[in-house]
This record gives sequence, C-alpha cells and structure tokens, in this order.
Amino acid sequence: MTSAPVIVDREVLIVGAGLIGASIGMALTNAGVRVFLSDVDPDALRVAESRGAGWPLRASDEPDIVVVAVPPRLVATVAADALSRFRNATVTDVASVKVAPLRQLRTLDVDLSRFVGGHPMAGLESSGPASARSDLFRDRLWVVASEPDSPPERVADVRWLAHKCGSMVVELAPDAHDRAVALTSHTPHLVAAVLAAQFADADPADVAVSGQGVRDTTRLAASDPELWLDILSGNAAEVATVVRNIQAELGRVADALSEAAEHNCVDSDAMMAYMDPVRLMLTRGNHGKKVLPDKHGGAPLLYETVPVVIDDKPGEMARLFNAAGRADVNLEDVRILHTLGRRTAIVELEVTPEVAEALRAALTSEGWAVRG
Amino acid sequence: MTSAPVIVDREVLIVGAGLIGASIGMALTNAGVRVFLSDVDPDALRVAESRGAGWPLRASDEPDIVVVAVPPRLVATVAADALSRFRNATVTDVASVKVAPLRQLRTLDVDLSRFVGGHPMAGLESSGPASARSDLFRDRLWVVASEPDSPPERVADVRWLAHKCGSMVVELAPDAHDRAVALTSHTPHLVAAVLAAQFADADPADVAVSGQGVRDTTRLAASDPELWLDILSGNAAEVATVVRNIQAELGRVADALSEAAEHNCVDSDAMMAYMDPVRLMLTRGNHGKKVLPDKHGGAPLLYETVPVVIDDKPGEMARLFNAAGRADVNLEDVRILHTLGRRTAIVELEVTPEVAEALRAALTSEGWAVRG
Repeated sequence: MTSAPVIVDREVLIVGAGLIGASIGMALTNAGVRVFLSDVDPDALRVAESRGAGWPLRASDEPDIVVVAVPPRLVATVAADALSRFRNATVTDVASVKVAPLRQLRTLDVDLSRFVGGHPMAGLESSGPASARSDLFRDRLWVVASEPDSPPERVADVRWLAHKCGSMVVELAPDAHDRAVALTSHTPHLVAAVLAAQFADADPADVAVSGQGVRDTTRLAASDPELWLDILSGNAAEVATVVRNIQAELGRVADALSEAAEHNCVDSDAMMAYMDPVRLMLTRGNHGKKVLPDKHGGAPLLYETVPVVIDDKPGEMARLFNAAGRADVNLEDVRILHTLGRRTAIVELEVTPEVAEALRAALTSEGWAVRG
Repeated sequence: MTSAPVIVDREVLIVGAGLIGASIGMALTNAGVRVFLSDVDPDALRVAESRGAGWPLRASDEPDIVVVAVPPRLVATVAADALSRFRNATVTDVASVKVAPLRQLRTLDVDLSRFVGGHPMAGLESSGPASARSDLFRDRLWVVASEPDSPPERVADVRWLAHKCGSMVVELAPDAHDRAVALTSHTPHLVAAVLAAQFADADPADVAVSGQGVRDTTRLAASDPELWLDILSGNAAEVATVVRNIQAELGRVADALSEAAEHNCVDSDAMMAYMDPVRLMLTRGNHGKKVLPDKHGGAPLLYETVPVVIDDKPGEMARLFNAAGRADVNLEDVRILHTLGRRTAIVELEVTPEVAEALRAALTSEGWAVRG
C-alpha cells in the first residue's frame, strides 16, 4: 500500500525587493507560499514587506528556491552567493538577458547544476516595490531558460514558481531566449527611444501636433535608462544585428521617399513607381503585425466603461462617487480626461459588465451626464 | 437699432463616405446639422446613410460647406470639382497631407479663395463607414490649414465644422502642418511598419516570445498600406528627412552595441564606455517622451501622487472623495490598484503639487491610510 504523494509548497527567498521581486513576492504570498525577502536597501525591504511581498530573511531560514531579482549585471555574483549559501536550493533569476550572466557564472566556483535562469515577461514603466502588483505576471509568459543538461527537478522548481505567479511557461535555451527578446523586446525599446529622442530636440509647436498613435509607438521610451542600458549591454551582439537590419530598411525607405519627392511634380505614375520599396515595407509591416501574438493565454479582465461629464472643480468627484456608492457599485478603475480650455472633464468609471447598466441608470436618474 | 445676429447652422456636403467622412457625418447629424453625402461607391453611401451620417445628395441641394473626404491623391480633383459645382460653398478636406493637394489645386482653374484645408487628427486601424463613430473627433486636434490670405469667413466655416465634431482647433500653415506630422505621425507609422516587418520573416518561435511593449510599439503597422502609401508619397520629402535622422542614430547605436559586444569578455568598465552613445539615446528618448503631450492642449502637466489604502468595497471611494472634497482639492486623475486576494486597494490620487501636502494632511487627520 502506497500513500498518496504529499504536495508540499516550497519556501522561496527573493533577493532584490524592486518592482519585479516585490511583485513575485506578492503573487506568491497571495497564493499561500511562504516568502523571505532580502535587499541591500532597507527602505525597499520595508516597502516590499508592507505591500505583503514577504518577510525579511532570518539567519535560520532555509529556502527551497532562491529568486535573484537584481539588475542583469549583478545576477551572476548574487546567484553565486545564493548557490554557496543555500546548498540545496534551486536558484533562478528574472533578468531580461540569459547568456551573459550564465557565462559569468561559469567563471565562478559554484554548483551550476542547481541554477536554471528565468525571465517573467512583464514590467511597468515605473520601478520599485511601491509600484509592485500581485497580478503583474498573470497570463504573461515566463521563459524558463533550461538547458539540455538541466536537472528536471530544478526545472520543475522554476516552472512551479512561474505557475504560482499565474504565468504561462515557455522553455527556451538561454541563447534562443536572447535572440528572441533582441527581436521582440530589446530592439523595440531602442527604436521607441530613438523615435522619442526626435521630439527632445524638435520645435515644441511641431511636437504639439500629435495623436494617440505616436504615444503608443513611443510608450517604451519612458522606461528607466539605466536598467535598459544594463539589459542592452547584456545582449549587445544580438540587438546590434536586429538594429542593423532595421537601419538598412529605413535607409532604403528614405531613398525611395527622396526619389519620389524629386519626381513629384513631373509625373505621378513615375513617382508611385519610386514608392515601391515603401509599399513593400508597409505590406510586410501589415503581415508582421498579424503574426505577432495578440495576447498571451487567458483573456484579460474586461471592464465596461461608463463615461460621465462633470464640472472640473473640487467636490464634483466626491458627488459622483457618492452616487456610485449609493448604487452599491464597486469601481474597478477610474480615469479623468481633462479637456483643457474647458470647464468640464470626462470621468471614465470602469466596472464589471454586470453592474454597468445599473450604474448608468442610477447616475442618470440623479441627473449626471452619462455618455452613450 | 440693430437686431441680434442670427446664428444659422450651415448645411454640409461630405464627398467620400469612408471612415472619416461617415464619422464627420454622424457627428454633425448628432449635433443637428443637415448633412448630404456622396460617394462613387453606392454601397459605402448606403452604409453611411444607415449609420446616420446624412442623406444622399440631390441635384437641388446647395451645401454651404463641402468636406472632401477622399484619399490624399484624389483631394485636388474632387475639391476642384466641388469649387466649380457649388459656387458659394467653402470647400475643405481631411487629408493627412496639406501641401501636395494644394500645389495640384493651384494648377487647376478654380476659385481657391474658397478652399481652406483641414486635418482632423484621429483615425482607426479599421476603415470604411461601418467602422465610423460619431465621437471619433471628440477632444482631438483638428488642424485648420489656413494661409495668411485665407478669407476669415472661410476659415470660420472650417473652424465651425471642427467644433461641431467636438474637436479642438489648431491653425497651421500647410507647410508647417506637413513638417509637424512628418515628425509626429508619418515617420512613427513608417518606423512601426519597419519594426513589425522584422516579424514577418522571423522564426515564429522567436516572435511567440513577445509582450505588451512590442504590441504597442507596432500598433500603427496594422494600418491600411494603400492609404499610407498615398499619405507618405504626399509628404515624401519631409518624411525622408526625419527617417534619415532616425536611420543615422540607429547606426550609431548599432556601432556602439557591436563595439560593446566585442569587448564584453575583456573588461566590464571598458564595455560600458562603449555603451555611452546608447545611454545618451535612452536618456534623450526619456526626455522626448516627456515633452510629447499626454493629452491635448499643450505641455504635459506634472501631478503629484497621493497613494491611499482603502477597503476594496462599494462606498469607500465615495468616502475618500468626500474627504478630498472637504479639503477643497481638485483631483486631476485617479488610479485604483487592486491587490488581489486582499480586501484592500491602493487609490492613487493625482493632484497639482501645490495642494498635495494639504490633501495628505487632510486625509491623514481623518484617519485615512496615506502612504509616504
């Protein structure tokens, strides 16, 4: 007679209580996992603890898994330290580059069989434990950078960690990971930065004439330059290859545009012939956008928006929220859209679909200007 | 004794019942304006009419304003036709380029004093009257491409049109408009296309490893290639200039990355020195993103965040907003950060810096959990 296997949750130490480390801690704690935290910055540790990301590590704690959540350039030394200190623990990391830290680790005298890297593919433009969110990794990809000789039980530990945070796991060798993210993450970051940099030196009157499109295209340019410098240097060769491809294609496009501009007044058909490389590029861009996965895995939570026009003055939001409270509706999110030069604002109340109609009716009956 | 002026709404003809034309028609019709429609495609006309965009033009109709809502390359001929057929009407257009159609119009024998171009700065990746929305232009910029010799009453007609659609008007000379949108719209479109094009030929396994960042960066690549080919050829010289700047900067970045990759194993400090051009680019990108208007109406406002922990249940937001109202503080924006698995949420109140301290003090004195 055999007894049923007992599934025991691992205890996890997170080294580095920044945005990513604290978010993992919050997700694990929410899932009932015991989490220890350490950070060289006592303030970060305190904030992470206050957010419910875990408890400060004590000398007697023996974690089963150590998550190294420090900037890429520090991963190897911190991971080596963890491998030496916790002789049975599986050690993983969360850095956006996988080959460079591994190469550095191989030069150090540690038991690398217990190290399997990882990369949870989510982030925010903000940083630090105050911005951490327990749902940061939910329904996102978490790359487990296993190698052919990685012991299955170590890989299983990292997979367990990712699943506890709500992520979907993809296993990729470190070099395959770095090549993939050079294309889909690191180069887009750089391109967004170069595009946004054009506005830094431009005539403010030109920049003022902008719409939503360019805001989306340059969103990544708001990220922390020092962190991204670290990431890009850790994957410099792969990123350089993709950047050079893009640079060459932009050159061909610019040549075509210059030719077309020169022949503009002469003959419209001839001009359009010069535009052929641009047509090809736009068509390939269309196709490339289609092959890019739309979302990963599970459906995002869909809220319904109830837009209300209010007077843009103190007290109005309180009146509006009182009305929502009387309707017994819980607000999931709120956005205020100011219209400059006007004395009204649009408040978008986000609620779960099943209560949207009730909220609309309640607000309308109290005289609020609810938009269709 | 003079009588008060009577404001009479103009009657408007929209030529071209696509996404933009039909959306303008719906906005005007909603605002009580009489709208006529024409389109060479009877199906488009029928769909636009069924969406409430207006009524098919009859021979006896005499519009006061004609909106030419056709692709850029057709604007000049359609506008010339409208100027000839309706001898008193103001004629405007909605194309994303302003100089090229005007140059072509000048070669035609028409009364150009009645033409003032326009550019409502909104769109969707989808096209056609079935995708039209009456609120497409609400709170968006509408550039009125007036010139020094434009008759004020013609400019006033186009401004009236834009305001009826809920837009904010910016007057810009045609060449200033084309230079501005080359920077803030046309080049971002091209860059998004070139970036997305890299995925068209890439290993699908690499493309699968993608997150939200690249989806935002490449959103514009989903736009209609033929429409954008038309727009880009109409502004080829200006776009070529911006594309060449970006191309040159990407070249410098790629050189720096290659140098850094080569020196990677030798000396980490030396490697980081090679990364200096990348650091500069990321920092300039950060700055450029900051000067890009967040919403319309000039410089982005900097708000201070006052985070408050609340119970995540109906009525709590109202209580919080009442407290803010009692402190006589106007809230500029609000974000609710849910902490899943807990019964609390963090509400981030955004206020102008000069009232932040007062709000913090007022909330704290009423027992709210205000975070440092």
